[in-house]
Amino acid sequence: MNVLITGFKPFGGMRVNPTQQLIEAIEHEDLPPHVRIHTALLPVHYDECVQRVIAQIEQVGPDVVISCGLAAGRTAITPERIGINIKDTAPGEAIPDNRGVKPVDEPINPYGPDGLFSTLPNRRIVNKLREHGIPAYISNTAGTYICNNTLYGTLDYIRRKQLPIRAGFIHFPASTEMSVDKPLMASLPLDTMLTALRLIVETVAEDVNA
Amino acid sequence: MNVLITGFKPFGGMRVNPTQQLIEAIEHEDLPPHVRIHTALLPVHYDECVQRVIAQIEQVGPDVVISCGLAAGRTAITPERIGINIKDTAPGEAIPDNRGVKPVDEPINPYGPDGLFSTLPNRRIVNKLREHGIPAYISNTAGTYICNNTLYGTLDYIRRKQLPIRAGFIHFPASTEMSVDKPLMASLPLDTMLTALRLIVETVAEDVNA
Amino acid sequence: MNVLITGFKPFGGMRVNPTQQLIEAIEHEDLPPHVRIHTALLPVHYDECVQRVIAQIEQVGPDVVISCGLAAGRTAITPERIGINIKDTAPGEAIPDNRGVKPVDEPINPYGPDGLFSTLPNRRIVNKLREHGIPAYISNTAGTYICNNTLYGTLDYIRRKQLPIRAGFIHFPASTEMSVDKPLMASLPLDTMLTALRLIVETVAEDVNA
Amino acid sequence: MNVLITGFKPFGGMRVNPTQQLIEAIEHEDLPPHVRIHTALLPVHYDECVQRVIAQIEQVGPDVVISCGLAAGRTAITPERIGINIKDTAPGEAIPDNRGVKPVDEPINPYGPDGLFSTLPNRRIVNKLREHGIPAYISNTAGTYICNNTLYGTLDYIRRKQLPIRAGFIHFPASTEMSVDKPLMASLPLDTMLTALRLIVETVAEDVNA
Repeated sequence: MNVLITGFKPFGGMRVNPTQQLIEAIEHEDLPPHVRIHTALLPVHYDECVQRVIAQIEQVGPDVVISCGLAAGRTAITPERIGINIKDTAPGEAIPDNRGVKPVDEPINPYGPDGLFSTLPNRRIVNKLREHGIPAYISNTAGTYICNNTLYGTLDYIRRKQLPIRAGFIHFPASTEMSVDKPLMASLPLDTMLTALRLIVETVAEDVNA
Repeated sequence: MNVLITGFKPFGGMRVNPTQQLIEAIEHEDLPPHVRIHTALLPVHYDECVQRVIAQIEQVGPDVVISCGLAAGRTAITPERIGINIKDTAPGEAIPDNRGVKPVDEPINPYGPDGLFSTLPNRRIVNKLREHGIPAYISNTAGTYICNNTLYGTLDYIRRKQLPIRAGFIHFPASTEMSVDKPLMASLPLDTMLTALRLIVETVAEDVNA
Repeated sequence: MNVLITGFKPFGGMRVNPTQQLIEAIEHEDLPPHVRIHTALLPVHYDECVQRVIAQIEQVGPDVVISCGLAAGRTAITPERIGINIKDTAPGEAIPDNRGVKPVDEPINPYGPDGLFSTLPNRRIVNKLREHGIPAYISNTAGTYICNNTLYGTLDYIRRKQLPIRAGFIHFPASTEMSVDKPLMASLPLDTMLTALRLIVETVAEDVNA
Repeated sequence: MNVLITGFKPFGGMRVNPTQQLIEAIEHEDLPPHVRIHTALLPVHYDECVQRVIAQIEQVGPDVVISCGLAAGRTAITPERIGINIKDTAPGEAIPDNRGVKPVDEPINPYGPDGLFSTLPNRRIVNKLREHGIPAYISNTAGTYICNNTLYGTLDYIRRKQLPIRAGFIHFPASTEMSVDKPLMASLPLDTMLTALRLIVETVAEDVNA
């Protein structure tokens, strides 16, 4: 089973992005023997983030795509339920992407459906993480920024091509390392988040096999 | 122009629901002469909330449906961008409806699309409210509870019947009256929210005419 | 009865400070006939804020000093319980004053007590505001910035001089006008806050008379 | 050097209190050779919490008292700056103690000073924790509940008896284990908090020696 896991570069003035650290570390974890991990670091750019995922899908032919992003301020690991067909960085609501692009209420795909559900086993993931003492809940919004763009764009590509690929998005909180400089920001340690990512891969592997 | 405006009864142990007060008051506001307001108070029940909206649509034949709900804790008036095809009151994430029903990850319509965008002019509404000194932003999640059920169910009915009706959902914060007993809960005064609802009706009326 | 009411100029990049607007407006309110209001606009400077209060005390000989400040993010009117003998703008915890001064863990008065309680009737104020539908609670920290400096410095001056003056500090949330540009910031309308300030003066006047 | 470390039993309907777990675990940590740890589990009762600390002080003759408490919702380790002379569980602001006692605006010691500063090296503690990657900041309020009662009561006893003992209070966030059932509550893992407590003991030991 081929599993493509993606993360992001730092953005918004932060020095690190824990999802970059997670995809660098996940390959050294003890994973189920039939699982082969492929990783990709995505640019924090509207549209280009999806182009990179699509290029990776075409190259490695994954059975599953797990995209990972940072949701600074969240307290738990949060699989996203839905990607929505919008790019929006309206004033006061978000920051431009790493090229300075700030769309307002633009569709990602003018011919696409309004929303597309993640096809990862989100409820099983949440239950598994909780059994292992890691806080988790299903999030109902991935925002309207790069993370949502990646989720929607990936699901829409799979839909249009009718590919037998399951895909979804997991938001991670700030790492405890990051909250040292911003101590009012909730966090989880990177090693807890790495355990979570390993458990997510295991859950997905069981689910796809079953 | 017929405009159907809906609100909710109290729930979750609260004594009042400002959206009930708003629909009782909006008829006495100074509205554009060609606008005729109809109101309906919805039950805080999965499924039944939509049945009541549909019955009202069939009875009054509205051009526009504006559903209103309480989002306790929010700081601003928030038009919702999307309704999603899910009912979910997973443990720790929400409260049962007023009959005690607690679905987990159930579809509202097993054959419906994953998400449906509001067809109200949300961006124009937000801009209009801000011009009048009222804080507002577009929300990207109406949750997975009765409010989302109302939004999705209404949009899905209009879609299935191919009706020429615009519809959407506006979340209002707690009223200042409510926050007297819970002073850490953000609020806006009921009269500010009534002004907001009047401005929303005006914006919708301009938009549909244009 | 002479009542000195103080407010602040804008700081931290904000364009307005509602407490400046409140002290400009309070004189035009309908107050008890035996109450004479004096107002002062304080600089957002450590130490100088207190010097200005002291100069005003010496000039107008007040029976009561009510200092007012902005606590952006709070949801209610909050009389402060205590001023503490510290100036602190440690990294990540606060912003410099309007001259760029950033003390860390410095005493306001090296010979003063650690803390001094407000001598305003805080509990009666909170009850009165709630009776009038305005959310309020007693706050247990005025921070370690200019507001706390004003509260502690005023109480410490009155203590050292053994003056028959009651004094305290009221924090106000952002005005609704301010939250238009930052719609995730809780607010109350300026007119609600002006009513609150009038009720506070009334409560203080009753209390001092009794 | 004798160091007395105190923690609390569960309260407010929670099943565990991480400070109970911390004081059970700290003795097995690798501490400076000249440090001898004594621990005490305090009741969640106004007044009795202090009586227990005083009994322990008289029994073990500590050089330092480090009291530990849970601040559910906080994101970092927070040494408290000050204890204040008040017990308050006003409606909507706090919960009764474990005997159901709910004082409103009562002094802890009717003859005591309004506030008493912690005599732990709080700034050095915060800097040490941050150097080791653990988020921390100095808190300016321990509330008006049992934790504040313990801090104020301990400092006031030491003051009245003129004892050569340094004392203070450290608030810890919820443990990650606790946030599994309340995933919107910020947390740190118990082992991170145990490392923090060990570093705090080390810092205090260096400071008292110096």
